[in-house]
Amino acid sequence: MYQNDGLITLLISCPDQPGIVAAVSHFIFEHQGNIVHSDQHSTDRHGGTFFMRVSFAEDSFTLQEADLVRAFRPIAETFRMHWSVHYSRLRKRAAIFVSKLDHCLTDLLWRWKSGELAIDISCIISNHRHLEHITQMYAIPYYHFPVQREHRRDDQQRILDFLANRVEVDLIILARYMQILELPFVQAYPHQIINIHHSFLPAFVGANPYERAFERGVKIIGATAHYVTEELDEGPIIAQAVIHCTHRDTVEDLMRKGRDVERRVLAEAVRLHVEDRVLMYKNKTIVF
Amino acid sequence: MYQNDGLITLLISCPDQPGIVAAVSHFIFEHQGNIVHSDQHSTDRHGGTFFMRVSFAEDSFTLQEADLVRAFRPIAETFRMHWSVHYSRLRKRAAIFVSKLDHCLTDLLWRWKSGELAIDISCIISNHRHLEHITQMYAIPYYHFPVQREHRRDDQQRILDFLANRVEVDLIILARYMQILELPFVQAYPHQIINIHHSFLPAFVGANPYERAFERGVKIIGATAHYVTEELDEGPIIAQAVIHCTHRDTVEDLMRKGRDVERRVLAEAVRLHVEDRVLMYKNKTIVF
Amino acid sequence: MYQNDGLITLLISCPDQPGIVAAVSHFIFEHQGNIVHSDQHSTDRHGGTFFMRVSFAEDSFTLQEADLVRAFRPIAETFRMHWSVHYSRLRKRAAIFVSKLDHCLTDLLWRWKSGELAIDISCIISNHRHLEHITQMYAIPYYHFPVQREHRRDDQQRILDFLANRVEVDLIILARYMQILELPFVQAYPHQIINIHHSFLPAFVGANPYERAFERGVKIIGATAHYVTEELDEGPIIAQAVIHCTHRDTVEDLMRKGRDVERRVLAEAVRLHVEDRVLMYKNKTIVF
Amino acid sequence: MYQNDGLITLLISCPDQPGIVAAVSHFIFEHQGNIVHSDQHSTDRHGGTFFMRVSFAEDSFTLQEADLVRAFRPIAETFRMHWSVHYSRLRKRAAIFVSKLDHCLTDLLWRWKSGELAIDISCIISNHRHLEHITQMYAIPYYHFPVQREHRRDDQQRILDFLANRVEVDLIILARYMQILELPFVQAYPHQIINIHHSFLPAFVGANPYERAFERGVKIIGATAHYVTEELDEGPIIAQAVIHCTHRDTVEDLMRKGRDVERRVLAEAVRLHVEDRVLMYKNKTIVF
Repeated sequence: MYQNDGLITLLISCPDQPGIVAAVSHFIFEHQGNIVHSDQHSTDRHGGTFFMRVSFAEDSFTLQEADLVRAFRPIAETFRMHWSVHYSRLRKRAAIFVSKLDHCLTDLLWRWKSGELAIDISCIISNHRHLEHITQMYAIPYYHFPVQREHRRDDQQRILDFLANRVEVDLIILARYMQILELPFVQAYPHQIINIHHSFLPAFVGANPYERAFERGVKIIGATAHYVTEELDEGPIIAQAVIHCTHRDTVEDLMRKGRDVERRVLAEAVRLHVEDRVLMYKNKTIVF
Repeated sequence: MYQNDGLITLLISCPDQPGIVAAVSHFIFEHQGNIVHSDQHSTDRHGGTFFMRVSFAEDSFTLQEADLVRAFRPIAETFRMHWSVHYSRLRKRAAIFVSKLDHCLTDLLWRWKSGELAIDISCIISNHRHLEHITQMYAIPYYHFPVQREHRRDDQQRILDFLANRVEVDLIILARYMQILELPFVQAYPHQIINIHHSFLPAFVGANPYERAFERGVKIIGATAHYVTEELDEGPIIAQAVIHCTHRDTVEDLMRKGRDVERRVLAEAVRLHVEDRVLMYKNKTIVF
Repeated sequence: MYQNDGLITLLISCPDQPGIVAAVSHFIFEHQGNIVHSDQHSTDRHGGTFFMRVSFAEDSFTLQEADLVRAFRPIAETFRMHWSVHYSRLRKRAAIFVSKLDHCLTDLLWRWKSGELAIDISCIISNHRHLEHITQMYAIPYYHFPVQREHRRDDQQRILDFLANRVEVDLIILARYMQILELPFVQAYPHQIINIHHSFLPAFVGANPYERAFERGVKIIGATAHYVTEELDEGPIIAQAVIHCTHRDTVEDLMRKGRDVERRVLAEAVRLHVEDRVLMYKNKTIVF
Repeated sequence: MYQNDGLITLLISCPDQPGIVAAVSHFIFEHQGNIVHSDQHSTDRHGGTFFMRVSFAEDSFTLQEADLVRAFRPIAETFRMHWSVHYSRLRKRAAIFVSKLDHCLTDLLWRWKSGELAIDISCIISNHRHLEHITQMYAIPYYHFPVQREHRRDDQQRILDFLANRVEVDLIILARYMQILELPFVQAYPHQIINIHHSFLPAFVGANPYERAFERGVKIIGATAHYVTEELDEGPIIAQAVIHCTHRDTVEDLMRKGRDVERRVLAEAVRLHVEDRVLMYKNKTIVF
């Protein structure tokens, strides 16, 4: 796919004012970049925040990364930008966290293997041993980190230390990892932890959403992929999808239908994140 | 449509046990009825509740309504049934309640006028005068009943009295009627009041769901049609639908998209109710 | 909605090359325009066609329309652009063509009346008298132009003459107008005629799609809004949507379900066209 | 799931007339069967065809299979039924046919492994060796049967002989098997071969649907699971689903999106078939 092949992507947010697009596009043009995609969004017509994602071909661009950063800094300062630069050839390194359910994990692994997800999977981390066999098929290291409620913070600190020292990762995917992450963990990976919640949030926040959906008698169920923040199930939503259900569906049927939605939504969110399509605004996402 | 033309429909619920379908279908057969539709549902394989909706042609059936009731009673008692009988030629009489927004009202009126909704519309009742002109186009009486928060119970009692004495109705449709119904009102029309809530319940229970959906940054919005019970927004759900949205959608865009979903879901719920397709179980619906 | 209020929109297509976005955004910036929306698309990374839609506030922009055209021309020539400029305050004038079915017409009229569709409706034109009463409710002129198969070209020429001399329009909406338009008619309004076809094209091209969908036993039906070109049902597709169906749906049920989809898709396509969001490429649309 | 556990299912079709439901349900009742599900459908109110699917618990039923057949035969003859009986504990034996693409295969294997699909997978058959490694992971025999266009009939006869003599199967799943099946093959497995076509049929019948969808500029793509008959891509449709696309989607994007739809639709169709929910009428399916 040409879109992701050899692209440089700038992610920008700043107070809205005239001239931003002109300045950025002129910068790219004067260094021989050819814009392949560009998206803008303003939260408000007057006095809002401006967001931009612009991708251009790396091959013709005349600046190396360090030079790009140096040359772009004056523009960024003029417009008081938050900004970051991403090279599509530098694949993000992900750790996948799982517990006992395998549908999201196997789906991610298949998409990764087939080339759909342009990431490196550094390792699988689990509080159980159940899924170890699957990961052997894919030759991905599997690390078992038991977590117990009474000393969860210490148990998770061990994972943090492990990641800090042994397996550097840019992205943590909670693929039905049934453990609440402690504050130090969340803070160590701001907007780098993606969770799949098995309801169309904010409906059925918390545990056992399928049971509660069944109890309430809803006619649709869904799934939500979101960044993990300090507030449980309250992080910025990246992607959501739903499926219809009826009175004939038992809780098990809801779970079966839900598995299809969960894995699709999680994979979609990971793809959007990996392609640097997600910016943050308040507690919400801009998805370009 | 042959389905609705001259049909008798039995709605049945009772403790599950063998022989119910056999008894009911034999009863219909021995009186020359030809079953056109039949649906069953059991909440549980052992010791659950059994639900049945069976429709048969009226023309060949040999019993008049009173005889049908008398002849069926022994079967009903044997199986300890809750049951009711409905003749499709006897159209339900509905009152539509509105406030200022017209999209659900105009949609219902168009569907009624075009023959999609097999109801009689007895009147429109509103706490405002805004939509009076629309109803004049359709030659339907429009009654203005102001409601004030401080004496809402009295104000609503006036509507109740009016309906009891002047315009008998079997169904009340709250087509974006922005008033909470008081207990006596709800109790006067059990499972006969259908409301449209502009969110995919139980998300955004209460007021201003579009504003709150915008604040939360959800990627889908929706609408829910439900029976009104004593618990606000907690009644049995009849129909739900959703639509996708993005960061580009303002609150006004959500409202615009939502109007399309609201009117579709409300019309669907009314159609299901009018065709006697909805049974109740706990606080949930069985929709055949 | 601020998006449509006092905006100037440029629609541009040209051979792709570096510098286009920079040149256009610089032009807007130097004349004090503030970009509110901007979208780009390239059909191919190398040697493809580039498309751009950019909207900026009219109030701060320093050029009047004639000056804008004059000042932008050198840029347009440099990049060999096809381009056009649109002012949101100049509402498009539409004629709605209908036959006997009213669901699309009434839906468009409701959306127009409620402010959802920012168009002027100049007149309704029909080959029948059936729907005359509806349009009287909205105080829109209704013109009856009978069309007979044997001299359809002449009959349609009369409509063309009428539109040329009496009621100038920028947009023709075929809201279930059951007449094939003759070549001269199509050529008089290139990419200005929007039709709703009651199938998910290219399935069931031609007549009676619901009957044929029923015969084929499909599990989804749909609708397609497209520009009318010289090839029947082959014009560029603007919007499509579908709905599920089952073996229980009769042809009449398909028609009922289809009406909901048709009116939604047609309204969506008209909205996209009216907001100048549609560009053409080969026989396809770019919808920004 | 109680629904599939120890059930006997009768599938019935016959000329419609009064008394069928009564006779069938009485038969089940008199032999101590408890009806768990029952569905009926008539193609027409007068003189149509009647279809019925009824499931009842096996444990309390007093007849063994041979006795059931013998005892039910008089009823079947009275009503001139086509009928069949299915025991849920007797799992269908399936052969999965693949070529080079693995997404449908891996999805089916995962669902089978996780218990979602209650089938036995007897073998995988392919005209290529590409996917042999996957099937080793699941310990399922993989047989390579090369097929060449010039002697396709002979090549396929070898597969037929193999299936007849070595690996008895009740169901053949074409999981993106890119070979047209010859007439003798189709006739050997009437309504037992399920194919996934990568378009929303009847749109894009034949080869390369994604390329043609891209060329046509459709705004939705889809997939269709159908029984294979003698007419290519014309067999009875079991399930369909679609997904939206835009001008931004390349052919590769359509393929990526399509893979998600294909595997979901194929798995759904297999599930419906395996649960004996599909009856045939003309060239259409009744899906209970």
